[in-house]
Amino acid sequence: MERKILLTECPDSKGLIAQITNICYKHQLNISRNTEYVDPVSGRFYMRTELEGVFNDATLLFDLDRALPAGSERSLVSQRAKRVVVLVTKEAHCLGDILIKVFDGSLALDIAAVVGNYPELEQLAARFDLPYHYVSHQGLSRTEHEAALLEVIKPYEPEYLVLAKFMRILTPAFVAQFPEKIINIHHSFLPAFIGANPYQQAFERGVKIIGATAHFVNDDLDEGPIIQQMVAPVDHNYSADDMARAGRDVEKAALSKALQLVVEDRVFVHGNKTVIL
Amino acid sequence: MERKILLTECPDSKGLIAQITNICYKHQLNISRNTEYVDPVSGRFYMRTELEGVFNDATLLFDLDRALPAGSERSLVSQRAKRVVVLVTKEAHCLGDILIKVFDGSLALDIAAVVGNYPELEQLAARFDLPYHYVSHQGLSRTEHEAALLEVIKPYEPEYLVLAKFMRILTPAFVAQFPEKIINIHHSFLPAFIGANPYQQAFERGVKIIGATAHFVNDDLDEGPIIQQMVAPVDHNYSADDMARAGRDVEKAALSKALQLVVEDRVFVHGNKTVIL
Amino acid sequence: MERKILLTECPDSKGLIAQITNICYKHQLNISRNTEYVDPVSGRFYMRTELEGVFNDATLLFDLDRALPAGSERSLVSQRAKRVVVLVTKEAHCLGDILIKVFDGSLALDIAAVVGNYPELEQLAARFDLPYHYVSHQGLSRTEHEAALLEVIKPYEPEYLVLAKFMRILTPAFVAQFPEKIINIHHSFLPAFIGANPYQQAFERGVKIIGATAHFVNDDLDEGPIIQQMVAPVDHNYSADDMARAGRDVEKAALSKALQLVVEDRVFVHGNKTVIL
Amino acid sequence: MERKILLTECPDSKGLIAQITNICYKHQLNISRNTEYVDPVSGRFYMRTELEGVFNDATLLFDLDRALPAGSERSLVSQRAKRVVVLVTKEAHCLGDILIKVFDGSLALDIAAVVGNYPELEQLAARFDLPYHYVSHQGLSRTEHEAALLEVIKPYEPEYLVLAKFMRILTPAFVAQFPEKIINIHHSFLPAFIGANPYQQAFERGVKIIGATAHFVNDDLDEGPIIQQMVAPVDHNYSADDMARAGRDVEKAALSKALQLVVEDRVFVHGNKTVIL
Repeated sequence: MERKILLTECPDSKGLIAQITNICYKHQLNISRNTEYVDPVSGRFYMRTELEGVFNDATLLFDLDRALPAGSERSLVSQRAKRVVVLVTKEAHCLGDILIKVFDGSLALDIAAVVGNYPELEQLAARFDLPYHYVSHQGLSRTEHEAALLEVIKPYEPEYLVLAKFMRILTPAFVAQFPEKIINIHHSFLPAFIGANPYQQAFERGVKIIGATAHFVNDDLDEGPIIQQMVAPVDHNYSADDMARAGRDVEKAALSKALQLVVEDRVFVHGNKTVIL
Repeated sequence: MERKILLTECPDSKGLIAQITNICYKHQLNISRNTEYVDPVSGRFYMRTELEGVFNDATLLFDLDRALPAGSERSLVSQRAKRVVVLVTKEAHCLGDILIKVFDGSLALDIAAVVGNYPELEQLAARFDLPYHYVSHQGLSRTEHEAALLEVIKPYEPEYLVLAKFMRILTPAFVAQFPEKIINIHHSFLPAFIGANPYQQAFERGVKIIGATAHFVNDDLDEGPIIQQMVAPVDHNYSADDMARAGRDVEKAALSKALQLVVEDRVFVHGNKTVIL
Repeated sequence: MERKILLTECPDSKGLIAQITNICYKHQLNISRNTEYVDPVSGRFYMRTELEGVFNDATLLFDLDRALPAGSERSLVSQRAKRVVVLVTKEAHCLGDILIKVFDGSLALDIAAVVGNYPELEQLAARFDLPYHYVSHQGLSRTEHEAALLEVIKPYEPEYLVLAKFMRILTPAFVAQFPEKIINIHHSFLPAFIGANPYQQAFERGVKIIGATAHFVNDDLDEGPIIQQMVAPVDHNYSADDMARAGRDVEKAALSKALQLVVEDRVFVHGNKTVIL
Repeated sequence: MERKILLTECPDSKGLIAQITNICYKHQLNISRNTEYVDPVSGRFYMRTELEGVFNDATLLFDLDRALPAGSERSLVSQRAKRVVVLVTKEAHCLGDILIKVFDGSLALDIAAVVGNYPELEQLAARFDLPYHYVSHQGLSRTEHEAALLEVIKPYEPEYLVLAKFMRILTPAFVAQFPEKIINIHHSFLPAFIGANPYQQAFERGVKIIGATAHFVNDDLDEGPIIQQMVAPVDHNYSADDMARAGRDVEKAALSKALQLVVEDRVFVHGNKTVIL
C-alpha cells in the first residue's frame, strides 16, 4: 500500500471528474481525498487527488493521457521532502524558522544548501550541518553575481529556491532558470508598499495592520502569484523598527505556511494567481 | 439551465466519486464544484456537488439510488432561501444582524416569524414587517411553555429554528421535533465556560481571548455539533460587562456565518461533529 | 459624582503628566484611567484622562491653561452620544450595522439624519424613524451637489459626518467644512488598491486577504488618517463579487469599531496618522 | 543618559499618579511612556513608567517609599536580558523558536541552561552552545525528581523558569521555590480541555478553533494567571495529530509572545490574573 498524489490541470470539459476517478477506480486505487476547482474565467480545470493502493505509474499515466484533453498537465507525486536551496542575506528569522521546522520534522524539506550574499548566516547554517555558500555581490555586476549564484546552486539540482529574506532583485534571465520554482517572502501585505523599506512606508502611512506575502517570483518585481498572506495588528506606539520586528514574526509564519502548502503539492500556478487545493 | 446541489452521504467504498460523477455526466450535467470528505474513523463518505444543466430530478435520483450502497442519504436541492423561525429573548444584536443581512440580500433566509419569551424585540421585528409572537414562560412549566412555543412555530413549517440568543434550555422532547434543525449561538468558546454567565466566568479566569460558538442543538446542553466558532481579544481592562459587549460582535458574526454555511447547504452532521464542504 | 474625560495635546516637556495630574488631584478628582503617548518624531504629547468626582469645569480648565505650554489643546468632555449625519449611496450593510448597534444601545451615536445620493436606503432609515434626505447628484456639477448636501446637513449641526459607503469623492472645499470630522470606510486595506473597484483589483491580483479601512477624510483621496483596519481571508474560490460580499462584513466591522473609538473620545489626529488612547 | 522602568503596585488612592510622576520630575527624569491600571474590584493600582535621564536609584526609591502607601511594591529595572532556565521534554518547536529568537536578537533572554527529562533535545541545545542537563524522572518519585531538577537549576540562579513543553506536573513544593516565576505553555485554549491530551479532546469535540495558553504556574494545574492566548482555525479535515501539528505553531507563538512581555517588564500578577501594561 502506497500513497501518492495525482495532480491534474487541463481545459474544463463535461465529465472530467468522472473520467479521472474512473481510471483510478479501474486501477483499484482508493481516493482518500479529492479537491477540484474550475476557474470560471479561463475555464481551466484543476484537481488534486490523494490516492492509496498499489501503483503502476506507467499504465496509470498512460490511461490518463488517453483520456485527458489536449493541453493537459498531470503528474503523480510521492509525498517526500522537496529538495531546496535557501537564499538569504543577513536576517536570521525566516531561515531559523525553516531550520527548526525541518529539524523537528514538521516541514518536509530537504535543504541541500544555504546561499548568502553576506557571511552573517554561515554560522546558523553550520549549526544545522548545512553547507553555506557566501557569494558576495560586491564588486560584481548583477549578471556576474547571478552567474556566481547559479554556479553554486545548480549542482544541488534543487526543486525549489526559497528566498528567505534574500534582499536582491533577480533578473528575468535568472528567474527563467527556475520557472514557478522560486518562492519569496515579501515584507509587506502586497500590493501595499511595493518596493523598498515597506515598514518605513507603513509607519509613515500610519497603518493599523502590517503583513507579509509569500509568492512565486516572476519577471515583475513583487508581482508573482501569491501563495500566502498573513497580517499582524500595529498601532501608533510602533516605530518603523517596531513594525519591522513585529513583521518578522509574520514573515516567517507566512513563508513557512507557503512552504508547507508547496511541500504538500497543493499549489497550482494559474497565470499570476495560485489555486490551492 | 438550472443550478442545483447534490448532497451525498454514505458508507465509503472504492469508486464512489466515479460512480456519482458518472451518473451526473450521463445526465449531461456539468459539475462546477465538487468537494468530498471521507471520515477516516467512521469510514463515512460525504460529497457536495454543484451541478448545472437541465435536471430530471426523478431519474437522476433513481440512478443514484441504484448505484449507492445501503445506508446512503442523498438529496438534490435548489438554492433558495431557507424558511426559518427565529427565537429570541431580549438581546437585539443577533436578530438585528440577521434582519439587516436578509434585508440587504446577503443572507438567503426567509424569516417566517420571530418568537420571543419576552416582548422586548417585538418592535424590532415589526420594523422589518415580521410577525412577532410573544410567548412568555412565566407561570408555565417548561413542558407547557414548549407546547406553547410549538403551537406558534409549527404552522410556519420552518426548515430550521434559529436560536438568536434565546436564553432558555430546551428539553429533549422539544429538540426531537426538529432533529439537526435547531441552530444555537452559545456565548462562549465551547467547551470553555459551559453553562450560565460565561462572560462572568471568563472575567474571573482572566482569559485573553473570548469566543462564541454556533452549533446544532441536541439533547445535551452545549454539546451539539459545532458549526462555527469565532474569537476576539480581551485584556485586563475588560470588566465582565465589557467582555459581554465585545462578545456580542463575535456572537452575531459566528451565528451569521453559520447560517450562511447552512443556507449554502455546506453543513453535514456527523455524530456530534459537522463536516463542512 | 460625575465622569468626564480630559483630552490634552501639547508639545512635550518634562513633568507634564505630573502637572496635569496634580491639577486633577487639587480639584479632588479621581483618575480612573490615564493613557498617554509622546510621539518620538514630533515630540507631541497626547493624554486621555478618565476622571470621576465633582467638576467645576471653568476653574479646572483655567488651571490647566495656566500650566500647559503654548500650543496646547485641551477639552473636557462628558460621555454622551455624538451627534452625526450618515451619508450613504445604495449599499445597506454599513448603515444597517450602525442602526442596529444604536438601536440595541451598544453604540452611543445620535443619528440626526441619513442623506443619500440615491433613494435606495430611504426605507431602511424610515424603519428606524430617521429622516432621510435624497440628494441626487444627477444633473448637478460636483460643486452644486455638495452645496445641496451642505444645505440639508448643516441645520442638523452634526459633530461628525459618517460616510457609510457614500460612493462620491468629496472636494477639499466640502471637506474643509468638517475638518477631522468626516469618517469614511474605504473598501480596501489601504494603501493597497487605492481608487475604484478595489475588489476587482484584489481579485485580479489574486490576494489571499482582503481588508477595509476606516479613516478621517482629508483633501487627498484615500489618504486621511487611518482609525481602524480589518481583514478577512479569501482564496481562489472567490470571484470579485464574492470578495465584495466578504468585504462587506469587514467594512461594517471596521467602520463600527472606528465609530466606537470616536464615541469614546479615544482618537487624536496627528498629521496624517491617528493616536488612539 | 540611561533608560529604566519603574514598576509600582499599591492600594489605589487619590493623587497617586501625580505623586509618583512628581518625584520623577523632581529627579529630572523624563517619562517617555506611562501606563497605569486600577483594578475596579480590588482597588489595586498598577503603573509602569519608562524613564530616561541620570538615575540615582537609592534616592529615587527612598523618595518613592516615603510617598507610597503601606502595602506598596515598587522596583526600578534596567532593560537587560532576563536570565532563564528552560525545561523541556521531547518536543523541539518551543525551545527551537526561543533559541532562534535569542540568536537573532529579537528576544532578550539569557538562557543559562536547558533541562530535559528526556535526552532528545540535548543535540538542539548543543547546536546553540547551551548546557543541557538530562534529568530523567524514571525510577524516581516525583519528590526525588524535583529534587534532582532543583539541584541542576538552582546554581544558575535563574530569574524565570520557562516550561517549553515540559510534560510533567510540578508539585506545590517545587512551584513555591519560584513564586510567579515559572512560565508554562499549555496546549489548549484554557479553560477548555484542561488536563491530558487536549488535541485528542478537541478532535473528539469537533471544535473549529484550537488554541494555546501561556501562563504562570501556581499550585492548581492549568489554573495560573494567563499571560497570553492564541488560536488557529481547524476543520473536519484535521485529525487529532493534525490539530497537534497546527497547535505547535500556536504554542510557540504564544509562549514567545508571553516571554516578550515578561522581558519588557509588562506583566503584573494580580491574584489569578495578569495586568499587562
